[in-house]
Amino acid sequence: MSDLLARRTRLLGPNVPTFYERPLQIVRGEGVWLFDDTGRRYLDCYNNVAHVGHCHPRVVAAIAAQASVLNTHTRYLHEGILTYGERLTAKFSHDLNQMLMTCTGSEANDVALRMAQAMTGKTGLIATDNTYHGNTTAVAHLSTRRPPIGGYPPHIRRVPAPDSLAPLGGSLAAQPQAFAEGVARAIAELEASGHGFAGIMLCPIFANEGTPGIGPGFLDPTVEVVRRAGGLILCDEVQPGFGRVGTHWWGHDFLGFAPDVVTLGKPMGNGHPVAAVIARPEVMAAFRNAFGYFNTFAGNPVSCAAASAVLDVIEDEGLVENAREVGAYALGLLRELRHPLIADTRGFGLFFGIEFARDGQPATEFCGRVVEAAKDAGLLLGRVGRGQHILKMRPPMPFSRANAAQLVETLDAILRKMPA
Amino acid sequence: MSDLLARRTRLLGPNVPTFYERPLQIVRGEGVWLFDDTGRRYLDCYNNVAHVGHCHPRVVAAIAAQASVLNTHTRYLHEGILTYGERLTAKFSHDLNQMLMTCTGSEANDVALRMAQAMTGKTGLIATDNTYHGNTTAVAHLSTRRPPIGGYPPHIRRVPAPDSLAPLGGSLAAQPQAFAEGVARAIAELEASGHGFAGIMLCPIFANEGTPGIGPGFLDPTVEVVRRAGGLILCDEVQPGFGRVGTHWWGHDFLGFAPDVVTLGKPMGNGHPVAAVIARPEVMAAFRNAFGYFNTFAGNPVSCAAASAVLDVIEDEGLVENAREVGAYALGLLRELRHPLIADTRGFGLFFGIEFARDGQPATEFCGRVVEAAKDAGLLLGRVGRGQHILKMRPPMPFSRANAAQLVETLDAILRKMPA
Repeated sequence: MSDLLARRTRLLGPNVPTFYERPLQIVRGEGVWLFDDTGRRYLDCYNNVAHVGHCHPRVVAAIAAQASVLNTHTRYLHEGILTYGERLTAKFSHDLNQMLMTCTGSEANDVALRMAQAMTGKTGLIATDNTYHGNTTAVAHLSTRRPPIGGYPPHIRRVPAPDSLAPLGGSLAAQPQAFAEGVARAIAELEASGHGFAGIMLCPIFANEGTPGIGPGFLDPTVEVVRRAGGLILCDEVQPGFGRVGTHWWGHDFLGFAPDVVTLGKPMGNGHPVAAVIARPEVMAAFRNAFGYFNTFAGNPVSCAAASAVLDVIEDEGLVENAREVGAYALGLLRELRHPLIADTRGFGLFFGIEFARDGQPATEFCGRVVEAAKDAGLLLGRVGRGQHILKMRPPMPFSRANAAQLVETLDAILRKMPA
Repeated sequence: MSDLLARRTRLLGPNVPTFYERPLQIVRGEGVWLFDDTGRRYLDCYNNVAHVGHCHPRVVAAIAAQASVLNTHTRYLHEGILTYGERLTAKFSHDLNQMLMTCTGSEANDVALRMAQAMTGKTGLIATDNTYHGNTTAVAHLSTRRPPIGGYPPHIRRVPAPDSLAPLGGSLAAQPQAFAEGVARAIAELEASGHGFAGIMLCPIFANEGTPGIGPGFLDPTVEVVRRAGGLILCDEVQPGFGRVGTHWWGHDFLGFAPDVVTLGKPMGNGHPVAAVIARPEVMAAFRNAFGYFNTFAGNPVSCAAASAVLDVIEDEGLVENAREVGAYALGLLRELRHPLIADTRGFGLFFGIEFARDGQPATEFCGRVVEAAKDAGLLLGRVGRGQHILKMRPPMPFSRANAAQLVETLDAILRKMPA
């Protein structure tokens, strides 16, 4: 493994992200399990890309079958993109019935930002000050990890993100309104600066912000503010989408609002690089007529076959209901965990967080140690939030009650051994 | 087919690009052949994505095998990306020995621009005024198809592209120096405006510009100008790369200059969405330390398996030599074609152009009719150049002498029937 690390540094350069102080060499995946080079298995409670389970045989078969018949671009006509897109858009309400395919969620978000600009004729864009929407230059401007060379462009405004330890407006109850007021201030700034307001990009469950107090109705005041200003709501469903929230296929339907544009990514092809933008027809037309967009690999027959197989498996294996039922069961168990640093345990469907705090401040280092200890105990977890102090659990969708029990029992054993 | 077109418009919206007045419905691909829904076969002389031939069984088998074992991200260690990257970078000189993987050429170019900015601490970027480097917001700024909402950003300068009908400097001989002078002027403007000069992005064979008078040494004066100004040369090898030019693996080696960054895309995975940036270590480090770049799908084991299989096939089937030999044979035949509107016939390896002009002006409409007639005669061709007046031929690399003969015989029959 040290050999692999040295080869990575030599080949890939410095600062290439890995998980864990001593990264895992993973060689095989199956369902909710990942296996390392020693044959040890890990319960994957983190990777949402393998949405229907690692190496699901139906997805693999669909890819292999289509790859052997045809893989080309969409400048020729093909049934695959149509059959898939018609089926996918049928899962949306709010006139969200047109699709543009890309290869990555980053590309999808990059397009969504331009849709807002094309629709409004304005350039100003808003995101929260604790988020991540991808890695292209344009969407990296929305993220707060590192400032771009030359600084943030003036048409980008970052608004205070919802927070659980220090809620906007002073309380979780006041937070939805306070968040909307932040958005209203940013819109006023964009309008005063001459950029105008094109749109706001949000993950509807605020996954990277740690889902602080999120639930149905949370965004209602914000949606009203955005609508009144004539801007678009760009909903990044890369994390909540495809049924993860359990009660609904999409996070925005769980929260109960109507976006103008939805972006999809990670889970869509179970690892195959495929992503999409779903939009109302007038928004799609504004973009399509303003930009001559073409994406060579996007919407190719193999990507569509992979993505169709993912829909097949979600439906045939009842994975949305599974997310709801097992999710509720797991959340119940997680809420029984006791530790002095647990500030909150929350979740919806198969997306959970345990927030660690000490004296009302993020227990960053503690949370990091939990993640490392979990790895040593055979559990893969992540972390999230402003202080990277919230355990993030987002397992493949076939996660079972037995998996949930193992997760919670293992976490319990770990927490018992970790003094506050 | 009209049903498919109607469904496309309903699902995908307006202005989604297709080839041909009556687009083809392609259902199967094999080697250099594509098959439509009626079973008719077409000799594919255009699609460079299927670099080693449509649906090459070794690439399909590699994808299927790896997809059934593991497909996850690079935050875990895996042999696949290392074995592939070491093998790929070994094909480069000029200290171009580090790799960053992406899913698309657009993403690769988007990263390359930031590498230049990170390395120089400046923002100014240059491209030609008749090019295309991809579809993200940042790289679309380099393209000249449609201006972005809010106009082109001031740190982008477009320089006059080389041209064959109206060469810069008045002659093909003067063009390399004249092009370099345009670059020098743009650099001076960027420096005067305070943006400074970060880099220039070029396709080394100027594929989208129609390869006007390009050959070894063409970029020498430009390289000197860029070096003197302290900027980076970002070489977009999406079209010439992986041996297409026949004499070399990469277009920049064919031209004989040393880029700082090379981007790879379309042919790399034979249709699987995989792309990469190759850079000198100090350039990679500057980028990696300035940006926290991570790309979920990029460099996954399946993408690396697909890309490795492409290298296997290129090597085992001798496809670079094939491009040189069959390319020279085909170019010889193409140069025997006679028509009053043929202004020039040129090419290198398996990349050819026939330029049509009338009274020294692009014969745009004529070239369009040739492409349509070729389709009806079972040949897939494209077109390129400022006036879309240059037939573009860029077939899969296993193109044979018999394929070349068919191409030229069919073109000859078409041209004989088309009055000037």
